[in-house]
Amino acid sequence: MSKDRILMAHGSGGLMSQRLIEGLFKEHWHNEYLDQMLDGAVLNVPAGRIAMSTDSFVITPIFFPGGDIGKLAVCGTVNDLLACGAKPMYLTVGMIIEEGLDMEELRRIVASMAETARQAGVSIVSGDTKVVEKGSADKIFINTTGIGHVAEGVDYRPARMQEGDTVIVTGFVGDHGLSVLAQREGLRFSTLALSDCAALVEIAEIAASYGDRVRCMRDPTRGGLATVLNELAGQAGRSIVVREQDIPVSPVVQGACDMLGMDPLYMANEGKFVIVVDESAAESLLDKIQGTPTGQNARIIGSVSQAGRANVRIVTPLGAERILGMLEGEHLPRIC
Amino acid sequence: MSKDRILMAHGSGGLMSQRLIEGLFKEHWHNEYLDQMLDGAVLNVPAGRIAMSTDSFVITPIFFPGGDIGKLAVCGTVNDLLACGAKPMYLTVGMIIEEGLDMEELRRIVASMAETARQAGVSIVSGDTKVVEKGSADKIFINTTGIGHVAEGVDYRPARMQEGDTVIVTGFVGDHGLSVLAQREGLRFSTLALSDCAALVEIAEIAASYGDRVRCMRDPTRGGLATVLNELAGQAGRSIVVREQDIPVSPVVQGACDMLGMDPLYMANEGKFVIVVDESAAESLLDKIQGTPTGQNARIIGSVSQAGRANVRIVTPLGAERILGMLEGEHLPRIC
Repeated sequence: MSKDRILMAHGSGGLMSQRLIEGLFKEHWHNEYLDQMLDGAVLNVPAGRIAMSTDSFVITPIFFPGGDIGKLAVCGTVNDLLACGAKPMYLTVGMIIEEGLDMEELRRIVASMAETARQAGVSIVSGDTKVVEKGSADKIFINTTGIGHVAEGVDYRPARMQEGDTVIVTGFVGDHGLSVLAQREGLRFSTLALSDCAALVEIAEIAASYGDRVRCMRDPTRGGLATVLNELAGQAGRSIVVREQDIPVSPVVQGACDMLGMDPLYMANEGKFVIVVDESAAESLLDKIQGTPTGQNARIIGSVSQAGRANVRIVTPLGAERILGMLEGEHLPRIC
Repeated sequence: MSKDRILMAHGSGGLMSQRLIEGLFKEHWHNEYLDQMLDGAVLNVPAGRIAMSTDSFVITPIFFPGGDIGKLAVCGTVNDLLACGAKPMYLTVGMIIEEGLDMEELRRIVASMAETARQAGVSIVSGDTKVVEKGSADKIFINTTGIGHVAEGVDYRPARMQEGDTVIVTGFVGDHGLSVLAQREGLRFSTLALSDCAALVEIAEIAASYGDRVRCMRDPTRGGLATVLNELAGQAGRSIVVREQDIPVSPVVQGACDMLGMDPLYMANEGKFVIVVDESAAESLLDKIQGTPTGQNARIIGSVSQAGRANVRIVTPLGAERILGMLEGEHLPRIC
């Protein structure tokens, strides 16, 4: 018997689409909003500001150690909302599926999204599914767009960074990048390279408790830590100085990078924040972050320098200083 | 000299991504929110309910008579929000681009999105761009997700439909479907088959002025008029009866359908609403809709029947009645 697979008609907008929605999506994701079945969802949101963020996920392979494209799609947008200072509330899901996708793989992805959304405290409220012919996409692409409420007074614009502020990274860098690379290339290391893919709700809540002493947060995904630091420096119009030996890198990532000639500072993360915080609050914030399951390996990695030059400088263990640029070219395609 | 094309590095999240954002997206779409350049946008929204809707667009070809994938992507989500009773405010754009896409084509799409958004009164506030290898997608896929404000008391749930309510369609059906089919297959007709792709803000505003006498609205896209009528009937738990000769079909669509053996009631529309309205307001509403550029060919096509059977019945010119089902199978893939 042939396996149950996605057919073009599942994207027709007709009967087969309806069956997919009723039999799969609503089964796993159901909530009062999704169940409205309008052309969209009508949502209750508190008065005030709303953060909105979108991300499309095209990762290959779609299952990897530590996650899958569905978990990644929920975590990615949740983390972006958190980095805007929002409490994530609602997600939409837009899927583009290649004809012939194994229905069981889709089911695992949908279930993974449901579980991740539940843990992160968000509801999937509306969706859309398109199917394209075999060869016109690669298995499945998922867009998630989310909105969240931004509490009064919260302002995480990088322009708020001040001279002397402390820069924290909430854990080992490069884990997601190595996990996907290893899975794709069939590399084996002494330790399994697990993606850090996670929704960082708890860490964001801790940061929020520090009020305006937390200046800004950003999640260092595709371009890695180095690229995000450059974005922050550019947007703040300030230098950031980091110390190479203080940047946390796991032994497996460090070993693989040494072997393969890669730099963990440009490798993707999917469960990390860079947090810029007032120096006076840094140690206390770090301590609390280290008490969370996803923040155990958090470190203070550097500080914000004077306004003027908007660059990132890295100090080597021997005390030499060099410019740490943004990612140039393409490190590892389709990492998220 | 080789043409300017999209490279894998444009999706890296690094320097080339930043140049694409700065040099193209921000150039065309700029506004105070997009210019924040956070991981998302922090938006001001009025207190109350928010509608949220998402759609991914995978249409081929990406340029067609009457529109392009960019215009379609803006109109599609704007119309979905309007159909929820919302005033569309903000859109996010997630692009998945195939390596090698002609940069000039992307530029045209981005400009078209800017112009359509301006006309519809919405701002593109955040975006994401991924690039996949040649052969892993087909030119470009665009997700748009929008939010809009739902005024106090507005409720367009189909459950509000009552026996005797009037069903209006706001113009010729099947135009978008035929336009894309003709473009794809190289068909020529005596008249150019133009897509109806349009944002229906003006018609929605007119409908809103009728308060709760308008029961619900829906845009009959992929599955055509027949499918949307079935969705409404199913969600209301009521029959809908339409008269075949009252359904507006343009001569070019009717002629092509006769020739090709297709049914315009299952062909896609991208600038039409089905509106269910209290009978007492129907003629007045129709008259006003016909006074708009996109509503000139609006017609009353039928009415809502008693509760019980949730089906759609169509009365032929000779008075015979038959069940009009949802779209089964796939009519025309990748129509939106």
